[in-house]
Amino acid sequence: MSSDYNEIPIPTIKRLPSYLRLLKGYRDEGMEMVSATLLADELGLKPIQVRKDISCTGIEGKPKVGFSVIGLIDAIVETLGWNNATDAILVGVGHLGTALARYEGFGNYGLKIVAAFDSDERKWGTAVGNVPIYNPDEMGSYIQENHVNIAVIAVPADHAQAVADRVVGYGVRAIWNFAPKDLKLPEDVVVQRTDLATSFAVLSAQVKLRLEQKKHRSGSTTW
Amino acid sequence: MSSDYNEIPIPTIKRLPSYLRLLKGYRDEGMEMVSATLLADELGLKPIQVRKDISCTGIEGKPKVGFSVIGLIDAIVETLGWNNATDAILVGVGHLGTALARYEGFGNYGLKIVAAFDSDERKWGTAVGNVPIYNPDEMGSYIQENHVNIAVIAVPADHAQAVADRVVGYGVRAIWNFAPKDLKLPEDVVVQRTDLATSFAVLSAQVKLRLEQKKHRSGSTTW
Repeated sequence: MSSDYNEIPIPTIKRLPSYLRLLKGYRDEGMEMVSATLLADELGLKPIQVRKDISCTGIEGKPKVGFSVIGLIDAIVETLGWNNATDAILVGVGHLGTALARYEGFGNYGLKIVAAFDSDERKWGTAVGNVPIYNPDEMGSYIQENHVNIAVIAVPADHAQAVADRVVGYGVRAIWNFAPKDLKLPEDVVVQRTDLATSFAVLSAQVKLRLEQKKHRSGSTTW
Repeated sequence: MSSDYNEIPIPTIKRLPSYLRLLKGYRDEGMEMVSATLLADELGLKPIQVRKDISCTGIEGKPKVGFSVIGLIDAIVETLGWNNATDAILVGVGHLGTALARYEGFGNYGLKIVAAFDSDERKWGTAVGNVPIYNPDEMGSYIQENHVNIAVIAVPADHAQAVADRVVGYGVRAIWNFAPKDLKLPEDVVVQRTDLATSFAVLSAQVKLRLEQKKHRSGSTTW
């Protein structure tokens, strides 16, 4: 069955939080209208791209006047689904899981970690920040009773697939995967992977290359 | 001046850590040779892509036999520059900075945070995990005396550009930016941005869309 809802391109979605941050700054400075050109300049994009991105949120600008700052903020928040606080569970309370449970930045975009699960029984009944830690055996009933849609997975790579299968079986529809592992899941489950190792790989490979090029160039000079 | 070193495509670099994890698993199981087909199957890629990626590391396979597991591990580690532990400083010891300073996973890919800097003077002289926290006024001398190449930035968005300009001025050549802000820096500085908000934006926008589609479909059924 086809849908009336058009998928917004992923690159557009990825730019929306940047627009949002800028727009909130403009709002706080008292600006009422903003041009695509200003947003484009600030973010290093072409104005045509900014106009396309904005049109995905359903907002239309006025010629020579631009876009309403508040209207655009509301439209982006709505498009991202950040207008309703979303409850999520966290699976895995190791170093990274602890960091995620304690990270207060999530509140800014409507994500609330309401419960954590860890296989280490010494952690059961304790809390990390304000988040209580439970026995993974209680995961199913917790997800079902609280209608939790999102799971944040921060377990070791070799446990990630089993944990993902389990939470999806209990009804979770979206997974934010911090484990360094590609998950195989049903098509209708949304998966987003955030892998610090991959980010650092890009950085360190480029640093290595630059250092080699530098050596190579200074080598050539002495010939 | 042109260089003899070819840049490896970014998508290839991003896949290298996944190959590395798989290969280390195979090595631990005692496997000596591996085929591109096996790697491709495991990661959901096409074998031709895997062969192209591997050729970027300078390793050649043998027909019908495949690639040496250990040879490939060494070549990837070398390509990523993960064979030498890289010292980095951390700027910003808030929630995220604290999490990063304490995160032990960095050791796996040769990144070592050796010092942290924060503008809150109550933190000076204390430590987060094993990382000492200093007054930002000492940043310049620390970077220069210890030949630090990499800075991890975890300050609020509105301070990120100023901090980046400062560390680059002191000689830092690569920045891992966790602040939700696009940095404008000289061409020869390597910047990698890891933004949790952007990752979550992709997830939540897709979840929202799926829920709307579901509502829409069940609406149609009742007509």
